[in-house]
Amino acid sequence: MSGGDYIAIDWGTTNRRIYLMRADGLVVRSERDDRGVLAMSAMAYSGEFSAIRERFGAFPIIAAGMVGSSRGWREVPYCSAPIELSTLAEMVTDCGENVFLVPGVAQRVVGHADVMRGEEVQVFGALAAGLVPEDGLFCQPGTHNKWIKVSGGRIETFATAMTGELYSLLRQHSILSEMIVGEPAIGPAFSAGLKRSRAACDLVTALFSARASCLLGLMDRSEAASYVSGMLIGSDVAARNDIDGNDVFLLASGSLAALYAQAIEYAGGRTVPIDSQASFAAGIHAIWESAQ
Amino acid sequence: MSGGDYIAIDWGTTNRRIYLMRADGLVVRSERDDRGVLAMSAMAYSGEFSAIRERFGAFPIIAAGMVGSSRGWREVPYCSAPIELSTLAEMVTDCGENVFLVPGVAQRVVGHADVMRGEEVQVFGALAAGLVPEDGLFCQPGTHNKWIKVSGGRIETFATAMTGELYSLLRQHSILSEMIVGEPAIGPAFSAGLKRSRAACDLVTALFSARASCLLGLMDRSEAASYVSGMLIGSDVAARNDIDGNDVFLLASGSLAALYAQAIEYAGGRTVPIDSQASFAAGIHAIWESAQ
Repeated sequence: MSGGDYIAIDWGTTNRRIYLMRADGLVVRSERDDRGVLAMSAMAYSGEFSAIRERFGAFPIIAAGMVGSSRGWREVPYCSAPIELSTLAEMVTDCGENVFLVPGVAQRVVGHADVMRGEEVQVFGALAAGLVPEDGLFCQPGTHNKWIKVSGGRIETFATAMTGELYSLLRQHSILSEMIVGEPAIGPAFSAGLKRSRAACDLVTALFSARASCLLGLMDRSEAASYVSGMLIGSDVAARNDIDGNDVFLLASGSLAALYAQAIEYAGGRTVPIDSQASFAAGIHAIWESAQ
Repeated sequence: MSGGDYIAIDWGTTNRRIYLMRADGLVVRSERDDRGVLAMSAMAYSGEFSAIRERFGAFPIIAAGMVGSSRGWREVPYCSAPIELSTLAEMVTDCGENVFLVPGVAQRVVGHADVMRGEEVQVFGALAAGLVPEDGLFCQPGTHNKWIKVSGGRIETFATAMTGELYSLLRQHSILSEMIVGEPAIGPAFSAGLKRSRAACDLVTALFSARASCLLGLMDRSEAASYVSGMLIGSDVAARNDIDGNDVFLLASGSLAALYAQAIEYAGGRTVPIDSQASFAAGIHAIWESAQ
């Protein structure tokens, strides 16, 4: 590492975003592409680092996310939650080639075992940038939604919900496939799904009601995608017992953010949208500085 | 219809079972194969009836199950629950070729819309044969598990849980696929799944703990199939609020029956195994006689 400019990469499963960082933490420019770890072979990383340096400059690289998993370039062991930023920064690993990897975080609790790689950087960044108070609940929807509970500026506990993946499975491969057409959107069908999931803890039963409702003409097929999405997201949100009356810091954008905001509001929470790119940049810079 | 021997078919999505019935309801012989409706084209049924009559005799045929759906031979409209056997029998439809189809049952309740085709015959049969009292709860596990509530010998309400299908989706297509190896079985991992699902209403979160537990070495990969199955079946059973202290009539056999029996016992219920073939035969005969 050095005290000059550097390159930071949020390197996920399917996408990555590369940031050229000034020594003081200012983002000079950034670039997003679909060269996530699933698109890379383990052998390809050295060439990739060279290509990145050709475009961004011959700077040190610090990367977080699935690039540090067994499916990525080098497997960096998880740190254990509860964890604060300085501990995570101490565990940043020099992997050679002037490339440093941020470890993921593990929760070693029987029945609530969990892992994450990358999301912790955004959370620490939102804290470091003063975008959020030192205590709060973060929600990071996606294929896997992460709920991260922060206390005193420290990540205390977290939980991964397979909400997005279940929706994809149901849309692509299940008996509901023929009903799930178009994209889910806010409206009466999504609200009905939220309501249905909150009324009873019976997701595996509730899901089939989407099919039966269409077959019996109680619901138009154009509504099924939103209804199913409402049940899944509603079930995900309803499973948290700390939303009612509280702020939820939502690290997301676009239509998924809108759906989660609606579900959080329905559960009595207040959604505070947080910019996930700004959070990543602030987080990786705080880690970079702390690791010097 | 006539007062002599007849052929009864339990014709489902993937399998069917053909019974040669004596006029007094005795099963002379039966035969099971995999020529369910998904294996048939709509045009093939006439030839199929001829082939069946060549093997079993030139008798009238009464069939129940998905054969009466839009995916089967002829679509027979659903009857509405609550329903008693005589009403269902009145709606048996003469579809020509001396073949009669039993309608399915629909529950037209917003948020709890549901449909079934075939399961109702087994339930009415268990009642007609005196295998169960006039009030009770039936459980019919499979790709879709049916919970059927009977009161005064009448089907009152029912609910379909996509438990088996979700397990298949997770095993075949999800991020849990690599962990789910072998068949689920009763044991500590299955019990841990039951316990985990009962502790909190958070199935979409709990499922990911199977992956994290394996990654972190808290669980051996050989246990993941049973753990996931325990969470899914446990969640299915826990969603019923009428099991604790009550009998549950389980229309199933083999390993799936054993898993459900364990989950029902864990929820405080008493499992009463009921023979589903004997129930179908008794049910279709009661319908046949009532429809004369």
